[in-house]
Amino acid sequence: MNFTIEKKCENSQARTGKLQTDHGEIETPIFMPVGTQGTVKGIYQSQLKNDIKAQIILGNTYHLYLRPGIDLIEKAGGLHKFIGWDGPILTDSGGYQVYSLSNMRKITEEGVSFKSHIDGSKHVLSPEIATDIQRVIGADIIMAFDECTPYPCEYEYAKRSMNMTHRWLKRCLDRFHSTDHNYDYFQTLAPIVQGSTYTDLRKDSAKACSDHEALIYAIGGLSVGEPAEEMYEMTEVVTAILPIRKPRYLMGVGTPANLLECIALGIDMFDCVMPTRNARHGLLFTSEGIINIKNAKWKEDLSPIDKNINCYTSNNHTKAYLRHLIHTNEMLGLQMATLHNLTFYLELMEMAREKIREGCFLKWKTEMVKKVQTRL
Amino acid sequence: MNFTIEKKCENSQARTGKLQTDHGEIETPIFMPVGTQGTVKGIYQSQLKNDIKAQIILGNTYHLYLRPGIDLIEKAGGLHKFIGWDGPILTDSGGYQVYSLSNMRKITEEGVSFKSHIDGSKHVLSPEIATDIQRVIGADIIMAFDECTPYPCEYEYAKRSMNMTHRWLKRCLDRFHSTDHNYDYFQTLAPIVQGSTYTDLRKDSAKACSDHEALIYAIGGLSVGEPAEEMYEMTEVVTAILPIRKPRYLMGVGTPANLLECIALGIDMFDCVMPTRNARHGLLFTSEGIINIKNAKWKEDLSPIDKNINCYTSNNHTKAYLRHLIHTNEMLGLQMATLHNLTFYLELMEMAREKIREGCFLKWKTEMVKKVQTRL
Repeated sequence: MNFTIEKKCENSQARTGKLQTDHGEIETPIFMPVGTQGTVKGIYQSQLKNDIKAQIILGNTYHLYLRPGIDLIEKAGGLHKFIGWDGPILTDSGGYQVYSLSNMRKITEEGVSFKSHIDGSKHVLSPEIATDIQRVIGADIIMAFDECTPYPCEYEYAKRSMNMTHRWLKRCLDRFHSTDHNYDYFQTLAPIVQGSTYTDLRKDSAKACSDHEALIYAIGGLSVGEPAEEMYEMTEVVTAILPIRKPRYLMGVGTPANLLECIALGIDMFDCVMPTRNARHGLLFTSEGIINIKNAKWKEDLSPIDKNINCYTSNNHTKAYLRHLIHTNEMLGLQMATLHNLTFYLELMEMAREKIREGCFLKWKTEMVKKVQTRL
Repeated sequence: MNFTIEKKCENSQARTGKLQTDHGEIETPIFMPVGTQGTVKGIYQSQLKNDIKAQIILGNTYHLYLRPGIDLIEKAGGLHKFIGWDGPILTDSGGYQVYSLSNMRKITEEGVSFKSHIDGSKHVLSPEIATDIQRVIGADIIMAFDECTPYPCEYEYAKRSMNMTHRWLKRCLDRFHSTDHNYDYFQTLAPIVQGSTYTDLRKDSAKACSDHEALIYAIGGLSVGEPAEEMYEMTEVVTAILPIRKPRYLMGVGTPANLLECIALGIDMFDCVMPTRNARHGLLFTSEGIINIKNAKWKEDLSPIDKNINCYTSNNHTKAYLRHLIHTNEMLGLQMATLHNLTFYLELMEMAREKIREGCFLKWKTEMVKKVQTRL
């Protein structure tokens, strides 16, 4: 796996690059659609490739571990084969879902014990177990097992948690380097910077992670409820310290405006459930602003969702039809809305790369941030 | 609109034909996917055309009249344009849904008054109103407004209802012929044979319908709970009377075996919610039999749903993956199961046409009926 920076923006930390994986090349900055349970909700793998032009997708270790279970994934030859997706895959460590979904969990130095949110069965995740599971799932990019602190978080808790996350990172890397690839392609493990919204902790964590040689560095514990300005501030603090020649992945971020701002701060990779989840609630991101397609104002609007996008939904259908489908609880409405939002996110990333290459990113970014935040 | 019979089976009433419409040619025998509210549930219009190879789809007048309403459909330029489907469309008259969905309804000689199942608002459908609505919706094939009797149905009620349906047919045709096409293509109105499960009534009704010159004749009031043998018997009685050179449409039928048996009895067109509704419950029709994909026996089965089909689902995915998706309530599972079942139905019709052309339909039909009914 190899990352090369192609072009740097002169007026910001933005850059374009290419990340080579055994499942294909990823052009950065990139957004990674979330495929929680081995599917990006409502989207065919063929659409991911041909319509949305996704270059990498995410899987959630917690969900996949519980269902269908790693034995079946291994029997199928790994997650790529099980779900029929031959592009790169990144998996999270499972920690985040344990904290957010399981109501019976206990965090100790050893790891986390929790009850399944599905059947109440008891399980344990630790740095070693999370690494082993992701080895078997077969992600190209494996995430370190960390604790994602909530917002707000008291300084002392954030500091203790961060230090434990650093010790867990060491255990993840030890386990990772002492085990083999399960399949015939390369896997890598990415450290995660924590430290809540405290500048000194974020600096400490960025340094501690940078002390480990890695191919990708991630920033976790943001977009958990803090104001956007704090997220930007922490991101800026961390990207200033992380190795300049390695891709930086900002976990769980965010709105189109968040993505553009964070690209300017030197972020290369993003994931978020926002485009898919919002689509299912009828919220559509467009180049002119945000549309709530459930609103009566769109009832008789026979124009496309976004005339500036090359998407199946806008190329073939009207706002009035999509509103009718969502209004009548038709599955196709959720499908087309999701397809639209993901296509918009990926096109936005493609535009950002183009603007960086053309040397006019910052000016374009300022204009786009205003537009994409407008409520239509 | 024109129908030509291409080839007749020597050992049964089966035949292949071509029905020309202004929205394209329909090869018969054909199955018409049901697009209740302006969408075949979970299926893109592009998939209808390119994957399923649907040649005509159905719309439900009752649903479309209530939502999005005919004013919007008219404003969009008709249902074809509103939903983005440029193939032929057939609409039912709305009567069936009034009887099955609305719990407050009153049938008189004039028509049916009912309350919407959505908001309780009061509405009236009559032969004239149902014809006008379908004119505006813009279906290529408009259905007569009839009463679909339940099963079992007392003889006297069935007879009275049938005679009223005949009077309603006359009123539908009068209205149809005294009104213009709303759009720039040809529309036709199809009479519906009723008469419950009584041979003499079915004969009377077939004759009464045949007395009206029409381009397509439909058989209604079957597949409403009666044993399959009674359905076949009534179908045979009716097809013996209906004009031989006109396509016959058996409404609301049925299983793959039902379709094959009724093709042998001279039926050319079918529609049914079974392939789409069953898919959403995990029941899959295949060339080897019926699969309940929720069953634990498929949990680790890494083979395709049906190795004999050319379908996106079977070409790209395994039973184990589809089971995982359905098991975890993922939308993609419902989408892929629906895509599979509809592709299977349309491929079955294509095979039937081939076998009729090759002169070996009856032998093939007998073998296939056994296979497709097997529980796997």
